[in-house]
Amino acid sequence: MKIPLTPLRCLYRAVDLYGRKEAVICGEQRFTYAQFGARCERFATALENAGIVYGDRVAFLSFNTHRLLEGYFAAPMARAIVMPLNVRLTPAELETIIHHAEPRLLFYESDFEAVIPKLCAAHPAMRVVNLNSEFEDFLSTGAPGRRDFMTYDEDSVAELFYTSGSTGTPKGVMLSHRALYLHAITCSTIFGTDDRGVDLHTIPLFHANGWGRPQAATMFGLKQVMVRRFDPALVCRLIEDEGATAMCVVPTMANALLNYAGVKAHNYSSLDRILIGGAAASADLVHKLEAVFGCAVMAGYGMTETAPVATSARAKSTVVYKDDADREEHQAMAGWPGIGVEVRVVDPQMCDVPHDMASIGEIVIRSDNVMEGYYREPEATAAVMSGSWIHTGDMAVWDEETFVHIVDRKKDIIISGGENISSIEVENAIAAHPAVLEAAVVSAPSKEWGEIPVAFVVVRPDHTCTQEELIPWLASRLARFKTPRIFEFRTEPLPKGGTGKILKKELREPYWSGLDRRVQG
Amino acid sequence: MKIPLTPLRCLYRAVDLYGRKEAVICGEQRFTYAQFGARCERFATALENAGIVYGDRVAFLSFNTHRLLEGYFAAPMARAIVMPLNVRLTPAELETIIHHAEPRLLFYESDFEAVIPKLCAAHPAMRVVNLNSEFEDFLSTGAPGRRDFMTYDEDSVAELFYTSGSTGTPKGVMLSHRALYLHAITCSTIFGTDDRGVDLHTIPLFHANGWGRPQAATMFGLKQVMVRRFDPALVCRLIEDEGATAMCVVPTMANALLNYAGVKAHNYSSLDRILIGGAAASADLVHKLEAVFGCAVMAGYGMTETAPVATSARAKSTVVYKDDADREEHQAMAGWPGIGVEVRVVDPQMCDVPHDMASIGEIVIRSDNVMEGYYREPEATAAVMSGSWIHTGDMAVWDEETFVHIVDRKKDIIISGGENISSIEVENAIAAHPAVLEAAVVSAPSKEWGEIPVAFVVVRPDHTCTQEELIPWLASRLARFKTPRIFEFRTEPLPKGGTGKILKKELREPYWSGLDRRVQG
Repeated sequence: MKIPLTPLRCLYRAVDLYGRKEAVICGEQRFTYAQFGARCERFATALENAGIVYGDRVAFLSFNTHRLLEGYFAAPMARAIVMPLNVRLTPAELETIIHHAEPRLLFYESDFEAVIPKLCAAHPAMRVVNLNSEFEDFLSTGAPGRRDFMTYDEDSVAELFYTSGSTGTPKGVMLSHRALYLHAITCSTIFGTDDRGVDLHTIPLFHANGWGRPQAATMFGLKQVMVRRFDPALVCRLIEDEGATAMCVVPTMANALLNYAGVKAHNYSSLDRILIGGAAASADLVHKLEAVFGCAVMAGYGMTETAPVATSARAKSTVVYKDDADREEHQAMAGWPGIGVEVRVVDPQMCDVPHDMASIGEIVIRSDNVMEGYYREPEATAAVMSGSWIHTGDMAVWDEETFVHIVDRKKDIIISGGENISSIEVENAIAAHPAVLEAAVVSAPSKEWGEIPVAFVVVRPDHTCTQEELIPWLASRLARFKTPRIFEFRTEPLPKGGTGKILKKELREPYWSGLDRRVQG
Repeated sequence: MKIPLTPLRCLYRAVDLYGRKEAVICGEQRFTYAQFGARCERFATALENAGIVYGDRVAFLSFNTHRLLEGYFAAPMARAIVMPLNVRLTPAELETIIHHAEPRLLFYESDFEAVIPKLCAAHPAMRVVNLNSEFEDFLSTGAPGRRDFMTYDEDSVAELFYTSGSTGTPKGVMLSHRALYLHAITCSTIFGTDDRGVDLHTIPLFHANGWGRPQAATMFGLKQVMVRRFDPALVCRLIEDEGATAMCVVPTMANALLNYAGVKAHNYSSLDRILIGGAAASADLVHKLEAVFGCAVMAGYGMTETAPVATSARAKSTVVYKDDADREEHQAMAGWPGIGVEVRVVDPQMCDVPHDMASIGEIVIRSDNVMEGYYREPEATAAVMSGSWIHTGDMAVWDEETFVHIVDRKKDIIISGGENISSIEVENAIAAHPAVLEAAVVSAPSKEWGEIPVAFVVVRPDHTCTQEELIPWLASRLARFKTPRIFEFRTEPLPKGGTGKILKKELREPYWSGLDRRVQG
């Protein structure tokens, strides 16, 4: 019997089995699953009454609130597409996205009032609704009423996430009802199926399908606690007050928690696990989080295009850790795939690289959770697919137990004499020198080697360090072919983007002026 | 991205992630997942070389062996339909099924040699292969080789199970690739996703898709230990020797284990859970199994038509047990639905009966795991479906937490003055009388009440018991309308079928001679 796979089933499962249970906590407001479900139904009907039809985009510009979470279910319920925008984007980036996606409706929080006229100008047909002052009135134009999910098309698009709108083609990742439902299942391999869970929504829901927590936490009837904006004091307090069992963090959040002066003033005994994603974790970070929060800490990996969760570094029955340090090293890796996900590390011919933890290849993924494509960009879609496999642009090594460890972004990897060099590995070796404040390694063209590594080094104040000192330092830490052939010492900090990442493209450009590099970026 | 949902993905997940892990233990033989997967591929190719094409039926007459388990994957891999036959059926029943299903191939164990000529006569085009003496030769005509499951149709039929072939229309339950894959996911809500698991295949694989263990245990990379034929001594030894973590039993098996003289001579510390299904469990059975095996014991519910697992009586976060007795009562119920399954208890108009643990209705199920229909029997299929809901024929009560408790089969329930009376409840009340050896309660027609309960009672040797004694006994135990209006005392044991169940149909027939009852059976 074919029952459509749709996030509506996640919602109705919670309504049917956990109707009287606390579902969503948002500041002072608390909703049961019956109340939450009725609000979603009301919202969906209000959307329909406002003229929303099949396939229309319904945008949000909002921090984490119960209203955005309701939108995750209401828009697909109205056969529309929910499109949460990244509130950290610049007005120009948001305009580009609105112009590209042409949403029929935009719900926004008052914080973003200033940008609204510009966004309306980018798509004049778009109606806007203020989530703080107008939303409950909007909701009252709808009515609760059970939806028959048998009438939904599981292959239709339910969500649209733009990964960047700054330059070139905006990329709107389309996720289908089916992908979202099956992604919730994938999450269960990582978060378990225990309905006693209390989930902190620490990750902005506008990031990568909220890491799947909206559907997965609802499917399993968890209590969901909204963290409007990440704030270490708030998170630490909510863990204790609401008895949180799990949360997801990016390394920056993890460090902010560890550096928060009041971190030791709370009781975290309810916490069962912390998942780190979004950027590379380290064994050190795993170690410190475990020490402070007293729970399992593990990395995970995915991308917006995979809904996003693909892997996690949870325990695997066939992997025996040598010691705690080895365990922490493993838990800081991308790890191994969840249910429904296949992950391979391949060479440019799509052949698996050896499982030797040394051969570098690109991660490709095949899964029910992979996007339907980039919205209105068939060429960009075709560019990232090899048949049914999606190219992640992340370079990795793996071992015989299929534990995957990411070593670099594809565009940052240096291919020298046919060997892949991880820029991150070389940077870490340089940064380990006591006199070095920061370092970046990029590729430069070479007639002999194709590419060679170039190091940019900033020395700590009141320290000195020269190329002649660094080369023997690196010789004991790196294979010879990985050692940079050129060192540029800078006195100013290296150029960085909005999220603090070093802009390697800027460092690379002078070397490649007038030349074509194999990968753009 | 639409990736076909097929049990092949369960197999390849295990091959990819657990290739070197012990997969299947069968007597003295031990196979890794790489070996098991290669054998399945070889088997599939051999089937194709033998002329098997899309949709052909491949039958098995076999106890639990690794070869039957291989057939679970090999036949669908060859785009054929695996059809394990119930070895306990009579030759006449098997002939009827073979004649109806027309399998192209039949694999059989030597134990069933005697019946083979008859089965060949029922479908002369069928080729037969002896699993003990000819199978490895057959396998050697195939070759290993990775299958691309992208080319499979998830909606095609992968399995066919005949529920009965004795009288009337044989019913072959068709399960699709998609149903089997998603059923493995449903099982994960009951058995967990922990890959350290060691599963004992105690349930005959020919019963109801082997309760889903072939796909689920493989998907999660468990070690699978075949129990060729259920034998308490063998099961107790294998739990200890192989470190089993989970097993499924029917109540008869559970009682056999408890009554086995050597049950206390083994170490069961590895056991994590025992699932009881197939027939009603009792709190007493749960209590005794927990005491002896020292692990969680819970009932579950389903039917061949639902692949079969629909519910289990596992813990639910919103249910707080009053005490251990209350917990055991709960764990003996059918319980609440797994992921992907909706269960309702409804009146004849398909409206939910009150969640009051007293109002009796029929269990209806909607789930990805429901059959595609009965093979070649569209009318029989239509008769059990109400839209997307399947009628189970099981009558139940439920509570506000959607815990379902089965009270009777639909055909055995007595509808008196508009009230549903559970024949089982009345039987238990009568059987509780110290002088009663056994009792059965069936319906008789009544002009005034529609139906009335009739009791058949056998008194213990050297005891006496009369209607005049029983009526006040029951008055303190049952509502007045449930008390039988007619008592028939028998000196001979009540008539029973092959599995020991009382044949209520025979008891009912004399009362209904010449009359139509609402339910046949």
